[in-house]
Amino acid sequence: MSGVHPKVLAAIADANMGSALPYGDDDLSKLLNDRFSEMFETSVSVIPCLTGTAANSLALSLMAGPINSVCVHEKSHAYLDECNGPEFYSGAKLKPIPGENGKLSPQSLGPFMAAIGERHSAQPSAISITQTTEFGSVYSLEQIKTLSSFAGNNELSLHMDGARFSNAVAALGCGAADMSWKAGVMAVSLGFTKNGCMAAEAVILFDQTRAEEGFYRQKRAGQLLSKQRFLAAQLLAMLDNNLWLENARRANRQNEALLSRLKGIKGVKVPDDHCGNMAFVRFTPDQIARLQSSKMAGYVYDNNQMRLCCSWETTDDQINAFIDVVTG
Amino acid sequence: MSGVHPKVLAAIADANMGSALPYGDDDLSKLLNDRFSEMFETSVSVIPCLTGTAANSLALSLMAGPINSVCVHEKSHAYLDECNGPEFYSGAKLKPIPGENGKLSPQSLGPFMAAIGERHSAQPSAISITQTTEFGSVYSLEQIKTLSSFAGNNELSLHMDGARFSNAVAALGCGAADMSWKAGVMAVSLGFTKNGCMAAEAVILFDQTRAEEGFYRQKRAGQLLSKQRFLAAQLLAMLDNNLWLENARRANRQNEALLSRLKGIKGVKVPDDHCGNMAFVRFTPDQIARLQSSKMAGYVYDNNQMRLCCSWETTDDQINAFIDVVTG
Amino acid sequence: MSGVHPKVLAAIADANMGSALPYGDDDLSKLLNDRFSEMFETSVSVIPCLTGTAANSLALSLMAGPINSVCVHEKSHAYLDECNGPEFYSGAKLKPIPGENGKLSPQSLGPFMAAIGERHSAQPSAISITQTTEFGSVYSLEQIKTLSSFAGNNELSLHMDGARFSNAVAALGCGAADMSWKAGVMAVSLGFTKNGCMAAEAVILFDQTRAEEGFYRQKRAGQLLSKQRFLAAQLLAMLDNNLWLENARRANRQNEALLSRLKGIKGVKVPDDHCGNMAFVRFTPDQIARLQSSKMAGYVYDNNQMRLCCSWETTDDQINAFIDVVTG
Amino acid sequence: MSGVHPKVLAAIADANMGSALPYGDDDLSKLLNDRFSEMFETSVSVIPCLTGTAANSLALSLMAGPINSVCVHEKSHAYLDECNGPEFYSGAKLKPIPGENGKLSPQSLGPFMAAIGERHSAQPSAISITQTTEFGSVYSLEQIKTLSSFAGNNELSLHMDGARFSNAVAALGCGAADMSWKAGVMAVSLGFTKNGCMAAEAVILFDQTRAEEGFYRQKRAGQLLSKQRFLAAQLLAMLDNNLWLENARRANRQNEALLSRLKGIKGVKVPDDHCGNMAFVRFTPDQIARLQSSKMAGYVYDNNQMRLCCSWETTDDQINAFIDVVTG
Repeated sequence: MSGVHPKVLAAIADANMGSALPYGDDDLSKLLNDRFSEMFETSVSVIPCLTGTAANSLALSLMAGPINSVCVHEKSHAYLDECNGPEFYSGAKLKPIPGENGKLSPQSLGPFMAAIGERHSAQPSAISITQTTEFGSVYSLEQIKTLSSFAGNNELSLHMDGARFSNAVAALGCGAADMSWKAGVMAVSLGFTKNGCMAAEAVILFDQTRAEEGFYRQKRAGQLLSKQRFLAAQLLAMLDNNLWLENARRANRQNEALLSRLKGIKGVKVPDDHCGNMAFVRFTPDQIARLQSSKMAGYVYDNNQMRLCCSWETTDDQINAFIDVVTG
Repeated sequence: MSGVHPKVLAAIADANMGSALPYGDDDLSKLLNDRFSEMFETSVSVIPCLTGTAANSLALSLMAGPINSVCVHEKSHAYLDECNGPEFYSGAKLKPIPGENGKLSPQSLGPFMAAIGERHSAQPSAISITQTTEFGSVYSLEQIKTLSSFAGNNELSLHMDGARFSNAVAALGCGAADMSWKAGVMAVSLGFTKNGCMAAEAVILFDQTRAEEGFYRQKRAGQLLSKQRFLAAQLLAMLDNNLWLENARRANRQNEALLSRLKGIKGVKVPDDHCGNMAFVRFTPDQIARLQSSKMAGYVYDNNQMRLCCSWETTDDQINAFIDVVTG
Repeated sequence: MSGVHPKVLAAIADANMGSALPYGDDDLSKLLNDRFSEMFETSVSVIPCLTGTAANSLALSLMAGPINSVCVHEKSHAYLDECNGPEFYSGAKLKPIPGENGKLSPQSLGPFMAAIGERHSAQPSAISITQTTEFGSVYSLEQIKTLSSFAGNNELSLHMDGARFSNAVAALGCGAADMSWKAGVMAVSLGFTKNGCMAAEAVILFDQTRAEEGFYRQKRAGQLLSKQRFLAAQLLAMLDNNLWLENARRANRQNEALLSRLKGIKGVKVPDDHCGNMAFVRFTPDQIARLQSSKMAGYVYDNNQMRLCCSWETTDDQINAFIDVVTG
Repeated sequence: MSGVHPKVLAAIADANMGSALPYGDDDLSKLLNDRFSEMFETSVSVIPCLTGTAANSLALSLMAGPINSVCVHEKSHAYLDECNGPEFYSGAKLKPIPGENGKLSPQSLGPFMAAIGERHSAQPSAISITQTTEFGSVYSLEQIKTLSSFAGNNELSLHMDGARFSNAVAALGCGAADMSWKAGVMAVSLGFTKNGCMAAEAVILFDQTRAEEGFYRQKRAGQLLSKQRFLAAQLLAMLDNNLWLENARRANRQNEALLSRLKGIKGVKVPDDHCGNMAFVRFTPDQIARLQSSKMAGYVYDNNQMRLCCSWETTDDQINAFIDVVTG
């Protein structure tokens, strides 16, 4: 719901000076691989995309094909909220798998490995995890490594849906590399839209075996802009002086501030293990009614929970106003 | 290769004031159907897209399915330059059909109708024409009506790839309605990117039977932005005071000016029936060499032809500079 | 594992007299619609298929498309054992849904209807049930009607995977019509292979709206034989004098006999609600070891259960031999 | 239109003795790789299929994917007569290419190689030729080698649609190996149905890299019979004592006899370069009228041509009867 960061908007305007070669042959687009390789401290191939659905679907189509299945959390965005996008791009089946707090684990994944080698079953070829998870929790580096080790033992690829990648890095206080390839992740769908861009996501390939195929798939899916420089400009603006990290830290801080204040309010139940910039918080019916009548409430989940998100542009005033409504 | 019109850029910046509901539930997106219905003088459903490939592919997926074929010109963008995008979205086969000047006609289409009712053949369900064609020619209103009548007789839908729709309207001096539904076209993939936007195309559905399905397909294809208002803002800016038409007229005028001057130059062969903002012009090898060394030449087609395009931002100075290089 | 019924084999040999028009234009194929319309006491369209996977996938492709989901039991053959066949043919997502005894119910289906109208979610368009279920249980007519009513209320189609349709009809003592369209089923994937054919299944369409499309899909999927008469001959042989029902009754009787005798054996646990020709029976580890060493045991499921099936050709001697091994 | 060879029918009946493991784990199916490896004098992987459409589509899906194109003759069965089957299985685009006598050549293929490396174009990855061609002509071994060399230079795979493979081998008087892998063919869709089976085709993979994937694709497409032994039995019966070759030789001989006699009849035009068991022959309108009224004529092609085919069961009497009608 938030807008575009002023520095990103300025970068778009700057990119508009003079003409440029189309379809990614411009000077800005040519910088992407190098600049993201710096961010991730290793050589990467970058496929810019316009939406998170496209970034997830494109990444998975390089890890799974029509005879395969992809293990995902049963509440994951890829499974529930992308209207068959990943299946469309890849042809694979997404296998919904339960797991506490929005996380997959070798224990929950184990039984699904029985399909390997079974002629009648779609063959598992990838695991996709979401970081920050849909529940607002964050996989620890150790948990990711455990999963990548499990994936490796079963000859599966490990993908990370990083719609909130930046917030997770900020929450863990680690580097982008630590939370991705150093922990065994082979591709990240990196989301910069929620974090300050207009529409800018990127598939980051650490395993570059199928990078070239990925570029043709990008074109085929209608994800290659003729004026690609405006997409590149957004991505690059986020990398300049680590704007991505600064924005994420600010969003996390505001979220922490909001939750701290909510904890003290009677009837409100804040989860213990929150971090990042999102949490599911339980309210009383009265509080919900007040939030709804003041247009501050969105969808109410089971158990009177609401999903609270702060962004890079959430102000202290907004938090104050929210608290005021909750306290009534 | 050109940039973004200042008014479009301003509209994007304006859209950034305050937050808005995501995924097309914002106020700007809600205006699209009404505003385009005004432009086309009839009720339409609008599905915004980010690229021309997506707009063509999405439109065709509503007119043709896995057992169908779509008749296209053998040199059309949809067949040659979209890396299987239309086949991907629709599942249908694109049938390449010859035709003079980039145009289809009942004569060239006729033999392909023999497949209708043949159990072993993909069933023709749509014809897709490009206006302005890939050759720079423009279908007359009469020619479009003849095709839509042919389509109707064979129970086919008629689609128009309108990547250069605006230039064709300007060239014909007619209204958007005349060149579309009034001539029997059932859907247009309307391109505003070449005509001044950053990345803004739209599927315009006159036959709205499958409009709702189209919105789910848009999401599934990764063409629904979370911050959809920035796409809506671009489209609306083009409609304000008919900026789309003003830009197209200007591009056409500059193209006319360029071609007039080229006609007088020895060795240059300008096609007789040019109109719109694009033409294939033949040069001498020397002229080509000079254009290439001055970075003014792109791809050289058969018979020493080059594709010349003017845009809304082509200046007289640029034309002068081009002529200077050609004359040597 | 069983073979081909002598009458079916004879019908194949008979069909080999003289030449015939190919691809379903032969005299036998032309009888199919009429003969199955008699069996089902209503006008039906029949699409012959070669495998159960094809029959399920083809039927579902007429009820669900790329933006849709199909509700199936989480242990269903379509979901687990057809290697993405239904997703391949239809483009839809199969939603695995829990349910006791292999059965779906409005209670278990209910929560999945929340996706209806949600832009980001695949849209439920069909429910597929298996009769006899994968657990060996049989939906009562009342249960089917309850499901079709639920389906109708949510504008979904109801499909029946009838790989063991005949055995269920025999078990319920009803007519083929009662268990299908009269109970609200819109298409059945009718399996005759297990029941005595070499390779003969058929999609039976009560809702014939998309029958013609189905025939093109049959061809496209490689399911239309040039010598289609040999497939028609098998299907017709099963209809003659209700061989399908006679075979099913015999299989059910033998199964009943087998289970009755097993019930008396110490350590063996026969399910209470068995019917049809299949049941999951629990044995002691010793019994399993003996069955395996005598090559009578196949796969052992959780809790030391084995799946026992009788066919139309199961003899009393085979049952005696099996009992002897169990008792040791 | 012809039936099943008695030896094949006998093999089916033999296969019906006793029960067998399902889904290709039976003893007959296990012989396939070895027996076809003998036929082709090299190690091959065999994927049995039920129709020619399936065999072509499955083979091509192992050579081309969604970003690819496959070069085929513009009159080929795969392009015209399989209702999008190859596109369905593979996701690739089939590129129709002209060529004399139903044959592709480096000259006709050359221009289509310009797409290689072009971001906007489907990437050519395979060439598919038909042997015997749809025109009744036969590629010489030299012509096949020239094509495989061209394919190799462009990093394409070479596939052979061998619906009439046996007749071509018989016509060339070479071995099955000579006309396939020794000439650079990487996979053959081998058709035994026209040559005496009920429904038995096979994908023969010389390049076995993706054989395992092929078996999963076979299952997914609904091409894996539960009683797979009856398909294996047909294929093996054709290999016994080279029945495939004997049948093909007989069909070719009868065709030769028929054409020889037709040559002497006024008004009949037999093509010079016929071989195999099929030819397009031109008749006078009177002759066609007589053939049609005696039910001997099928579809009449351009220029009063009819397609004449002899099979392994065509008798001298049938030829005499045909000649009688032509002479009137």
